[in-house]
Amino acid sequence: MTVVFADRMEFLRASEIREILKITQRPEVISFAGGLPAPELFPVEEMKCVALKVLEESGKQALQYSTTEGFEPLRKQIEVRLNKKFKVDVKYTNILITSGSQQALDLTGKLFLNPQDIVLCESPTYLAAISAFKAYKPNFIEVPTDDDGMIIGELEKILQTTVNIKFIYIIPDFQNPTGRTWSLDRRRQFIEVINQYEIPVIEDNAYGELRFEGEVLPAIKSFDSKGLVIFVSTFSKTFCPGLRIGWIAADTQFIEKYVLLKQAADLHTSSISQREISRYIELYDFEAHIKMLAEVYKGRRDAVVTAMQKFFPQNVRFTYPQGGLFTWVELPRHVSAKALLERCLKQNVAFVPGDSFFPNGRIENTFRLNYSNMPEERIYEGIRRLSKEIENY
Amino acid sequence: MTVVFADRMEFLRASEIREILKITQRPEVISFAGGLPAPELFPVEEMKCVALKVLEESGKQALQYSTTEGFEPLRKQIEVRLNKKFKVDVKYTNILITSGSQQALDLTGKLFLNPQDIVLCESPTYLAAISAFKAYKPNFIEVPTDDDGMIIGELEKILQTTVNIKFIYIIPDFQNPTGRTWSLDRRRQFIEVINQYEIPVIEDNAYGELRFEGEVLPAIKSFDSKGLVIFVSTFSKTFCPGLRIGWIAADTQFIEKYVLLKQAADLHTSSISQREISRYIELYDFEAHIKMLAEVYKGRRDAVVTAMQKFFPQNVRFTYPQGGLFTWVELPRHVSAKALLERCLKQNVAFVPGDSFFPNGRIENTFRLNYSNMPEERIYEGIRRLSKEIENY
Repeated sequence: MTVVFADRMEFLRASEIREILKITQRPEVISFAGGLPAPELFPVEEMKCVALKVLEESGKQALQYSTTEGFEPLRKQIEVRLNKKFKVDVKYTNILITSGSQQALDLTGKLFLNPQDIVLCESPTYLAAISAFKAYKPNFIEVPTDDDGMIIGELEKILQTTVNIKFIYIIPDFQNPTGRTWSLDRRRQFIEVINQYEIPVIEDNAYGELRFEGEVLPAIKSFDSKGLVIFVSTFSKTFCPGLRIGWIAADTQFIEKYVLLKQAADLHTSSISQREISRYIELYDFEAHIKMLAEVYKGRRDAVVTAMQKFFPQNVRFTYPQGGLFTWVELPRHVSAKALLERCLKQNVAFVPGDSFFPNGRIENTFRLNYSNMPEERIYEGIRRLSKEIENY
Repeated sequence: MTVVFADRMEFLRASEIREILKITQRPEVISFAGGLPAPELFPVEEMKCVALKVLEESGKQALQYSTTEGFEPLRKQIEVRLNKKFKVDVKYTNILITSGSQQALDLTGKLFLNPQDIVLCESPTYLAAISAFKAYKPNFIEVPTDDDGMIIGELEKILQTTVNIKFIYIIPDFQNPTGRTWSLDRRRQFIEVINQYEIPVIEDNAYGELRFEGEVLPAIKSFDSKGLVIFVSTFSKTFCPGLRIGWIAADTQFIEKYVLLKQAADLHTSSISQREISRYIELYDFEAHIKMLAEVYKGRRDAVVTAMQKFFPQNVRFTYPQGGLFTWVELPRHVSAKALLERCLKQNVAFVPGDSFFPNGRIENTFRLNYSNMPEERIYEGIRRLSKEIENY
C-alpha cells in the first residue's frame, strides 16, 4: 500500500493530557487536569435571548457564508475593548476573527515556519501552542523564566547567538501553565530587546482579563513601536469556549497574510456565533460578567493556595497566580510528577505532569493544577489527598 | 527588519474571485460569480426553535469545550444518512466533524503533502481546494475530464509514469466548477485503477445531495474495498454554511491522524452548532428540506439552461448539470473570459473566469456560472446581457 503521510506526521503524537482527561471524566475523580472554565457561570439565559435576536433580526446573513476577516461590528467591539483594557492602539481593520485562539496559533506556525526554523518560547509554555507549531517542524529554544517573566539576559544571549529565529511566543498574563505574570519592568525590557533585534512576537493574552487583584498591566503590544507584536486572544475564557471565537490583532503586513491563510484553512469563522457574541456585548454588561467570573475564580485560587500552604511539604514550591486558571507546582528535583500522578489516580485525583509544557522535554518534577472548574470544598479535599501522596512518595 | 515568512507564502495569493465578489456586492449587479446557497431557503424559524432547545436542554455542555472528534449523536446521524444515501459503509467512529469541508481539505494537505509531492485532480477542479493544498507546496497534475468524469485512460497514463503521487482529489457529483457528474461505469473503472495503484482518494461530495433528477449514484467510496477513499462533505449546501460544519469519513488509519491535526489546528468545531444541526435532524424532516432546495435550484438550473440555449451563439458550449449550483461555459478558443468579464461588469453582470479552476493555469476561454442565488427572471436577464457581450466580443 502506497499511503505515505507528510514528514510532519512523525512529530505529532496524541496528547498525553488528552489521555489523562479521558480517565478523569469519571465523576468520582477530583481533576485538576483540565483547563475548562466553570460551566455553571456560562451566560446561558443571555445566550438564549441573543440567539433568538440574531436569528430574528438577521437570520439569513447569520446562516450564510461571510467574510474571512470576520463580522465587522464584532471586530469594532474588540478594538474598543482591547485599546481600553490593555492600552494598545489597534484598528478593527487589523483584527482577524479566528476559530478560537488555537487557530491563531496554527496560522502563526503556517505563516512563519519552514522546517528547522527556530521558535523561542517561555520555559515552560502552553502545550497546545507547542502542538500547533510542531506541525510545521520548527526547533524550539526555551528561554528561562522566573516569577517576573522571561529572563531578559537569557533572551539576549540566545538572540545574539542564534540565526533563523522566526518568532517569540509568550503569554505574559497569568501564563498557562505557571499562572505567572510578567512585571511592568520586564515588559519594557523585553520590548527594548525586541525592537533591537526586530523579531516578531506572538503575545497570547487568553487569560489577561481574568485578573483577581492588582492593576491591569499594559500589554506588551502597548509598547510595540515597530509593529512587531502579534496579539492573540479569545472569548473562550471570558465568555464561553464552545463557540470557538478568538482573534488576532496585528500590523497590516501580518494580518493580510493571516487572512489569506485563514481563507484557505476554513473560509471564515461561524457567522452566527460572531453575531451572537457581538449582540451579547451590545445588550449586556460584559465587564460585570467578567468581574463575576474573576470573583469566583479568585475564591478557587484562594482555596487551592490555602490548601497547598496547609498540606504541602515544605520542599514543594508553587506559584501564586493573580488571575487566570492555573497554578504550577515544583517538587523536589528527584520526584517524578508522572509517577506521582499514577499514585494519585488511585486516590481519584488528577493533574497534568509538567514535562508536556517543555517543548524539548526532560523536566520531570513539575505539574500544573487547574482550579477554575470545581467548588472550593472539592479543591480542598483534592489538595489534601494529593499532599498525602506527595508525602508517601 | 528581520520578518521572514515561510516559503509557502510565495504561493498564496488573494483569490481573484474574492476581488470580483467585492465588486458584485452592489445590488444592481446580476452576479453568477459566487457559490452561495439561497438564503431565503435557510430554515431560520426551525433554527430559532433548535437554538432555544439546545440551550435549554444542554446549555452548559453546548457552550463548553468538547471533543475533537465531534458531537457523537451528530456523527451517528451522519453515519446513517451517508450509508443510506450513498451506499457506503461507514461507522460514526470513523467520522470527524470539521469546520466546513474547507477545513477537511486543509487538513488533507497537511496530512499528506511534503513540498513537491504530487496531487492529482480533475481538470478543472474546485479552486478553494487548490488554495488549501497550495499552502503545502505540492505540484498538481490535472487529469483530463469529459462529461462522464475523469478519463480513466489518461489517469492510468499518469499513474504509470509518475512517482510521489500522494492523493487524487475528485468531486464526482455536480462538480464545482463544471456541474458534471461521473457516470456509474466511470466510477467503477476509477476504483479498479485506484485499487491497483493503491493511491488515497479524496472524494468531495459537497453537492451530492442536491440532485434535481435521475437516480442517486453510489459514492466512489461505496466501491472502496481497500479503504483508500477519504469522503469529505458538509452541511453548507443542504442546511446552512454560516454554521461551518463539515466532516471527513475515512478508514481508521486516516481518521486518527486527521483528529491529531484537527486538535492542533483549532481543538474542535463549535459545540453549539453541532448540537443545533443534530437536534434539527432529530426534530424536522431534513430530507423534505433538501427536496425543497433541489426543487428551487432545479427551477433556476432550468432558467439558466433555457436562457443559454436561447441567447448564446452556436459556438458556445455549456454543461447541463443534474444537480448542484454551477454550470460551465466554454467559449471559442480565441475568446478570453477575463476580457469578456471586463465588458460584462460594465453591463452589471459578473461570473468567474475559468482559469482559476486549473491549478496549472493557462486556459482562458471558459467560465463558471452559479445559478443558486437569484430568482429565475434575474437569471434570464443576466444571461441575455451576457450573451450580448459574447456576441459583441
